[in-house]
Amino acid sequence: MANNIKRNNVGRPLVREKIHEIIFEADTPMGKLFDVVLLVLIAASVLVVMLESVNYINARYADLFFTLEWIFTIIFTIEYLLRIYSVYRPLKYVLSFFGIIDLLAILPAYLSFFVIAGTHSLMVIRAFRLIRIFRIFKLGHFLSEGNVILDALRASRVKISVFLTFVCLLVVIIGSMMYLIEGGEGSGFSSIPRSIYWAIVTLTTVGYGDITPATEVGQFLSAVVMILGYAIIAVPTGIVSAEMVKGSHSQISTQACRYCGAEGHDHDAVYCRMCGERLN
Amino acid sequence: MANNIKRNNVGRPLVREKIHEIIFEADTPMGKLFDVVLLVLIAASVLVVMLESVNYINARYADLFFTLEWIFTIIFTIEYLLRIYSVYRPLKYVLSFFGIIDLLAILPAYLSFFVIAGTHSLMVIRAFRLIRIFRIFKLGHFLSEGNVILDALRASRVKISVFLTFVCLLVVIIGSMMYLIEGGEGSGFSSIPRSIYWAIVTLTTVGYGDITPATEVGQFLSAVVMILGYAIIAVPTGIVSAEMVKGSHSQISTQACRYCGAEGHDHDAVYCRMCGERLN
Amino acid sequence: MANNIKRNNVGRPLVREKIHEIIFEADTPMGKLFDVVLLVLIAASVLVVMLESVNYINARYADLFFTLEWIFTIIFTIEYLLRIYSVYRPLKYVLSFFGIIDLLAILPAYLSFFVIAGTHSLMVIRAFRLIRIFRIFKLGHFLSEGNVILDALRASRVKISVFLTFVCLLVVIIGSMMYLIEGGEGSGFSSIPRSIYWAIVTLTTVGYGDITPATEVGQFLSAVVMILGYAIIAVPTGIVSAEMVKGSHSQISTQACRYCGAEGHDHDAVYCRMCGERLN
Amino acid sequence: MANNIKRNNVGRPLVREKIHEIIFEADTPMGKLFDVVLLVLIAASVLVVMLESVNYINARYADLFFTLEWIFTIIFTIEYLLRIYSVYRPLKYVLSFFGIIDLLAILPAYLSFFVIAGTHSLMVIRAFRLIRIFRIFKLGHFLSEGNVILDALRASRVKISVFLTFVCLLVVIIGSMMYLIEGGEGSGFSSIPRSIYWAIVTLTTVGYGDITPATEVGQFLSAVVMILGYAIIAVPTGIVSAEMVKGSHSQISTQACRYCGAEGHDHDAVYCRMCGERLN
Repeated sequence: MANNIKRNNVGRPLVREKIHEIIFEADTPMGKLFDVVLLVLIAASVLVVMLESVNYINARYADLFFTLEWIFTIIFTIEYLLRIYSVYRPLKYVLSFFGIIDLLAILPAYLSFFVIAGTHSLMVIRAFRLIRIFRIFKLGHFLSEGNVILDALRASRVKISVFLTFVCLLVVIIGSMMYLIEGGEGSGFSSIPRSIYWAIVTLTTVGYGDITPATEVGQFLSAVVMILGYAIIAVPTGIVSAEMVKGSHSQISTQACRYCGAEGHDHDAVYCRMCGERLN
Repeated sequence: MANNIKRNNVGRPLVREKIHEIIFEADTPMGKLFDVVLLVLIAASVLVVMLESVNYINARYADLFFTLEWIFTIIFTIEYLLRIYSVYRPLKYVLSFFGIIDLLAILPAYLSFFVIAGTHSLMVIRAFRLIRIFRIFKLGHFLSEGNVILDALRASRVKISVFLTFVCLLVVIIGSMMYLIEGGEGSGFSSIPRSIYWAIVTLTTVGYGDITPATEVGQFLSAVVMILGYAIIAVPTGIVSAEMVKGSHSQISTQACRYCGAEGHDHDAVYCRMCGERLN
Repeated sequence: MANNIKRNNVGRPLVREKIHEIIFEADTPMGKLFDVVLLVLIAASVLVVMLESVNYINARYADLFFTLEWIFTIIFTIEYLLRIYSVYRPLKYVLSFFGIIDLLAILPAYLSFFVIAGTHSLMVIRAFRLIRIFRIFKLGHFLSEGNVILDALRASRVKISVFLTFVCLLVVIIGSMMYLIEGGEGSGFSSIPRSIYWAIVTLTTVGYGDITPATEVGQFLSAVVMILGYAIIAVPTGIVSAEMVKGSHSQISTQACRYCGAEGHDHDAVYCRMCGERLN
Repeated sequence: MANNIKRNNVGRPLVREKIHEIIFEADTPMGKLFDVVLLVLIAASVLVVMLESVNYINARYADLFFTLEWIFTIIFTIEYLLRIYSVYRPLKYVLSFFGIIDLLAILPAYLSFFVIAGTHSLMVIRAFRLIRIFRIFKLGHFLSEGNVILDALRASRVKISVFLTFVCLLVVIIGSMMYLIEGGEGSGFSSIPRSIYWAIVTLTTVGYGDITPATEVGQFLSAVVMILGYAIIAVPTGIVSAEMVKGSHSQISTQACRYCGAEGHDHDAVYCRMCGERLN
């Protein structure tokens, strides 16, 4: 934390180091403040984009929104340039995921000068600034607890892929069957892709009701799909639960061996599993 | 339980002590009776509010409801005054969450004398009397079992916050994408906030169907959101399951062996499963 | 199994014993056959009731259905009388849950002679014959596995009650809030009970869409309710999962103590928890 | 892997062995390549069927689709013949599940020469080619992770059957009750089967909203069904979670100590946690 001299040995100016510390790190008071201010600014700028999209609000406050938008854009531009200036490998940052998102956050406002057609879409793109907020997970305890979740998801990565592959194949097959049963110009099941969309709506228990079966056979198949969806939600839930339980079990281990310092012993362990010495 | 003399030593009148015991404690017969009667009265008064809101019922029984309402209000007023009289720190009670709720339960009826506009809203507010019923969790076994749930939720507090933050960011991003795809005057996706509302309806698998995608791209995005919602429900479920499993484990094992210190004995164990010595 | 002589000692005729064995027990070949035949008959009779309710099918096969219905009624009547005849305490059976259901299964047909008004309702009541099928859980492995589920549910009985009480209070409060926000003649939220119905539809993620919020504030509250419903489903799931895990853990224990015969030791136990002797 | 000579000892031509190895096995480079190419071809052919069903796309690219379809059919025909040629027991393969699916994948195109009526249905049947993709689960890690899921589902087979039987009986009873309450020509609950369909839509929290209760009693019953559905989803979830947890536990602990026989060691344990002796 804050040992500029050491870093300065690498041969970079002190100011640059300081900026890097404030912008990219979260464990100094200034760094924390910067993160919080940035989060508030992003949230505020996204709120402006959201309110702008509501017609009757935009009609009244269009000028205010325009001014605010330029203030946000200028601040974010300065921040973007400072990031490039202070980072160790500017190109790597620019081409990184967050580098591109940071650029996308400021580009639309500038482009609106040149581009006339599609300005509307450009304005909406600013909403994706919100992705920058995911940096919030860099903050304190959020990180560690979020990591527990991520670890569980990472550990069950392949299992969930298998499950999702299975679900995808299933909905295509169910959709095709439904198209065969109810398909036709008049009905909602006008094509196989639309029937697959219905199958997903039904299997995931969302159930919009924009497309519903009209025939008895169709309703019977729907009923089967619903019960299937109701039952197989147990699979991802079970996978993640098992990983979480495993994760929390391994957290239980508290004491360290006096001889070798090994940690992670079971609660009921009598001897160190690493050096064989007795635990206290 | 019921040792008035000791308490009287503090220097408060006996009657006041007795009232405090009846109203605020649940472990004497009178205290239990009071709680049950109060619960029934609250439930009945909320039922009256609910029935009053149904036009054709109110048209017929308006007078009866009016009389009942005043009976409830007078009883609750007496109870409120007794609470203030008997509690140790009246001001702290008055400003506490349940103190405010208790006041809100009787205020609307009295205010209806003075206020004419907005009487309807005032009447509805009485329904929030129901919040008082949450005092039910003070009763016996409800408390301990409810605490197990609360402990699990408390232990997974941060994890669930991380999850909810993630979900909130996700729905804003999905909503903005959908507004970009299907947005426009004619469609249901008339603004970003409305599109976010749709994203929440879809991701949580509620699926009202009041706003549904019309274009192919929109339906594809919807399908992705649905499957996402179907899969990530596994996360909160897994978090709480893991905490519950951990909690139920710790319920089993309580005492440690005096000889070898082994933990994790069953509730009915007589001898240590590790060293064979008698447990206390 | 099939030791008539012993039972005959009680002083009941052998035929009666035999009938009792066939009807009430499932572990003799005849008893098993009886159960299966009865299940098929009940299923068939309910199917007839279901098909009768479909207009265009009933129009064509009314006579066939009438004949079948009488055949089923006569068989079920004989069965009912035999049950009364063979059971040890006829009155207790007649007044038991299944005794009443068995009577309800045959009554409508006979009543249709005398009652003319409400015949339709009478006919539908026959569908509740299906409840008799729950006797299926008497059969073999269904019983033991079903018991594991029931045990888990029974163990989490109080926790689930607490949860359901909480949900009930919550939907009343949410419903009242929504009535306050969107209530009025024109909207779907025409009364508090209806608003509570909406709150249940939303919180449970069913989402019919027959009542949906129209105002911004209403949609915001809906969004909160949905995310709440999406998150708190983790609670019952966690409760039952934890009980199931606990149940399956306690199933793991396999070996019995050589000295005292105590079972249910943990996998890693070294000494018997009941008598303190060494386990093998 | 690739020991043709050995196999050739069985007396089959080398070419046939080679084909068998490529088509039926996935652990040689050629076999893996074959599987991947086949998967891509199947996916592409199903995509063509799906796009063909969309009217405005088919109107433009009908000729292209026709050509592609024949290319796919010819490739799949060659593959089918090679499978029959190279497999050890051709008849067993032809009559196996995948044998029939493989035939169904090519039949519609050939039949379209002879059959004129029902050509539309024939074309759709080609979509079921997708079932062939389930062979994907033959590939590498997919297999082992998929097996963990399958094992959990297999272990909870009976429990889930009990649950599904219970759900099926429940929806019939709820459906009949609802028909009794709201049934009638005008309403959506026009017959018992339709009411059962509604009960399934509601209990599984799908909630299309195509049939909704109109009366107060009906809405009350719906509310009960919804809360029931919201609560009992915990049962399958709990069942599968418990099996998964059990499964992941057994993955951790494998070896037993040679000295004291203690089990449940971590994967990386060097010494027995119970007696301190070295593990092998």
